[in-house]
Amino acid sequence: MIDKNISKNSFSPKESVKIVTDFLNNYQNTKVLNYLKEMHNADVADILQNLDPVLRLSLLNIISSRFDPEILTYLNDSLRDEVVETLDIKQLASNAKTLDIDDAVDLVEDLEETDQNTFLENLEETERSLIKEGLKYPEDSAGRLMQRKFVALDKTWNVGQAIDYLRSNKKELPEDFYDIFLIDNEHRVVGVVPLGRLMGSKRSINLDTIKNKETRVIDVNIDQEEVAYLFSKYGLVSAAVVNNSDRIIGSITVDDVVEVIEEEREEDMLKLGGVGQTDIYNAVIDTTKSRFSWLLVNLLTAVVASIVIGFFEASIEKVVALAILMPIVASMGGNAGTQTLTVAVRALAVKELTTSNALKIITKETFIGGINGIIFAIIISLVSMYWFQDLMLGIIIGLAMVLNLIVAGFAGTIIPLTLDKLKIDPALASGVILTTITDVFGFLSFLGLATLFLI
Amino acid sequence: MIDKNISKNSFSPKESVKIVTDFLNNYQNTKVLNYLKEMHNADVADILQNLDPVLRLSLLNIISSRFDPEILTYLNDSLRDEVVETLDIKQLASNAKTLDIDDAVDLVEDLEETDQNTFLENLEETERSLIKEGLKYPEDSAGRLMQRKFVALDKTWNVGQAIDYLRSNKKELPEDFYDIFLIDNEHRVVGVVPLGRLMGSKRSINLDTIKNKETRVIDVNIDQEEVAYLFSKYGLVSAAVVNNSDRIIGSITVDDVVEVIEEEREEDMLKLGGVGQTDIYNAVIDTTKSRFSWLLVNLLTAVVASIVIGFFEASIEKVVALAILMPIVASMGGNAGTQTLTVAVRALAVKELTTSNALKIITKETFIGGINGIIFAIIISLVSMYWFQDLMLGIIIGLAMVLNLIVAGFAGTIIPLTLDKLKIDPALASGVILTTITDVFGFLSFLGLATLFLI
Repeated sequence: MIDKNISKNSFSPKESVKIVTDFLNNYQNTKVLNYLKEMHNADVADILQNLDPVLRLSLLNIISSRFDPEILTYLNDSLRDEVVETLDIKQLASNAKTLDIDDAVDLVEDLEETDQNTFLENLEETERSLIKEGLKYPEDSAGRLMQRKFVALDKTWNVGQAIDYLRSNKKELPEDFYDIFLIDNEHRVVGVVPLGRLMGSKRSINLDTIKNKETRVIDVNIDQEEVAYLFSKYGLVSAAVVNNSDRIIGSITVDDVVEVIEEEREEDMLKLGGVGQTDIYNAVIDTTKSRFSWLLVNLLTAVVASIVIGFFEASIEKVVALAILMPIVASMGGNAGTQTLTVAVRALAVKELTTSNALKIITKETFIGGINGIIFAIIISLVSMYWFQDLMLGIIIGLAMVLNLIVAGFAGTIIPLTLDKLKIDPALASGVILTTITDVFGFLSFLGLATLFLI
Repeated sequence: MIDKNISKNSFSPKESVKIVTDFLNNYQNTKVLNYLKEMHNADVADILQNLDPVLRLSLLNIISSRFDPEILTYLNDSLRDEVVETLDIKQLASNAKTLDIDDAVDLVEDLEETDQNTFLENLEETERSLIKEGLKYPEDSAGRLMQRKFVALDKTWNVGQAIDYLRSNKKELPEDFYDIFLIDNEHRVVGVVPLGRLMGSKRSINLDTIKNKETRVIDVNIDQEEVAYLFSKYGLVSAAVVNNSDRIIGSITVDDVVEVIEEEREEDMLKLGGVGQTDIYNAVIDTTKSRFSWLLVNLLTAVVASIVIGFFEASIEKVVALAILMPIVASMGGNAGTQTLTVAVRALAVKELTTSNALKIITKETFIGGINGIIFAIIISLVSMYWFQDLMLGIIIGLAMVLNLIVAGFAGTIIPLTLDKLKIDPALASGVILTTITDVFGFLSFLGLATLFLI
């Protein structure tokens, strides 16, 4: 029989939530504790997230005295705050011994100031000072991300010496490590030996001869997005972090980087959708507020578009078909522009779009806008002519369509590029600028041409 | 001095492209070769992507005979096809010996059928059969992703036996491995020992006593998105892949999973933006085509919205202010709905939104739509009353705004949930359905209420 601890299928939160709910409703506290004891902390976090809020509170009361702070690292930001509020910070600190320093830093940085102090005071001296040091690095920097434990060995050692060292310093080893960093007398990293290669080599072999062809180290000051880019590009599993004098001061492992990648991608996606840092667990009032500012900006741009329409009040009064058809031109421009924009924002994020190929891409996207513009101009011209039995109206809407789709292709690339140059996040602001342009230009070109040639 | 192979800062494609461009323009082929020889294949790929197309062709001609197929795995899909066309497939196959099987499978699956056959025929028998086996698994499955080499040892062995085995089977070891899998007589995985822990343990210690608390294995048939979810959730670095009879047949390492995560997130983002699988290197004609179908769908929905406006032709003729104001209601609905939609699509992707909390989230989002609706109704009412000096018009646009934002909140959650239930990718189709609904309902409610109460 297969061991029951072997999980082939993914953990099913729905089922576990049901089980825990039943236990809690029947006040079977011991059963709950035993059930959760076997679980990975990530799964416990999943259950907390999916429980009914009232039951969540009862569960937290039951597990509070042995609450593993690692669970917090798996929770969503908004729920994490809520859970921390119900916990005894002193107790939490005394349970924090097994927590990696990088996770502890991650936890402490989000606590309120008084909680931060209580938490730090109740830690052991070494842990406290390491966490405080971690907090000195800028938010979202490699310094915040790094683990303080690492294995750095003298570059002159051989495999046997390395293995003996690891065996006799078991307590000093990080919980997880995949590479051994070779250092010189000045603690500068001069090589990386993957553990697998170390294991496959005879004791007498020099570490220096089995090191990787390339040695990549991470500057402690670079942004976590850059860290993620390097890990992902070069398929790294761990990397040494060095300070300004190139000395090794920590290491970053891929599991933390995977989290960063998820975060950053999610951020881009949410920003493109006009929502900031948010998740479905956020309180109604917070969500409403966070959405509000974006909608307000949109209202302003919509009013601007309406003012433009207002200029042509007289034309619309004469030919009401203009009012009926005008949203089509604006909408097509907005959609074509958003397509271009999405590709451009992504390309900027993965560094495929750079200043060296910017001009080429702008030209290409504008050209594509033109081609699709011509095709859709023909379609909408024919539809409009048939619908309103008016040849000129068809020609005018076709012309407006071509123009707006060219503008959309151009704006869809130039806006994110410009924002990026100005150090403004292109994912955040591009969308609203784009649709303002395509709306205003769409209405202006269609109604303007109509006023010139039709009225 | 620090070794020149130590890269602290990220590779700068711009600079390298300039250097290579200069070499190529001066026909300094040997210099180019030497320059590239020192480089990581990922960087060579970067240079290829950023070079001028004509120079790219000359570079490919220069390096073709020693072209490392691994470079192809770092190229964008569209450029990869272009590069493969210029290469001699026989030559490529004979350079493919160092390629991991998972990378080889990845490469072969994208080749044209004749190229596939040529490539496979020119490989060694073992490699060919492993690749062919890999291709039997469904696209985007764990089977396609897995590496065929892994270290699986008898569960009764001790640390010393493990180390001796690794040393004497060096050639059989995977290029990179981070865990040792413990297996029983039936080749079923019963435990995982991280290399770091193995290294820190005395020779006499039994592997079984130092294995991880949990053993997670990957079913060969599950989707790569599920693999990524498991790796990311549990912070895995590698995992054993098992077949239907639970026997180990391969392993997956985190570097491949990082690629999958990037791909999947990117896909979601691009789909939400109304663009399919694409990148900025795609040819103009392909890009135009891929954008076209989406814009055509959008044209149809825009025409539907216009038909709805057409119903109220008479009303607009009487009160032209309706035409001026109507885009505001539709646009606000579209934006509010997109906000909700983006959050919902992301929450579905990371399994935060499930059937167990669906009703709660729908209610919450509809409610939020209502609150923001009321606030913006008041703002736009006041603006419209002042603008057109018409009390009733202000009340009507306010009412339409509340209604459309409630519909937007409801539709923004129910659409992706329904699509997900129907096994249709919510990222792909949600947007167009949503904006159709908010446009049609926005025009209908505003013009409808106006016709009832104003005309």
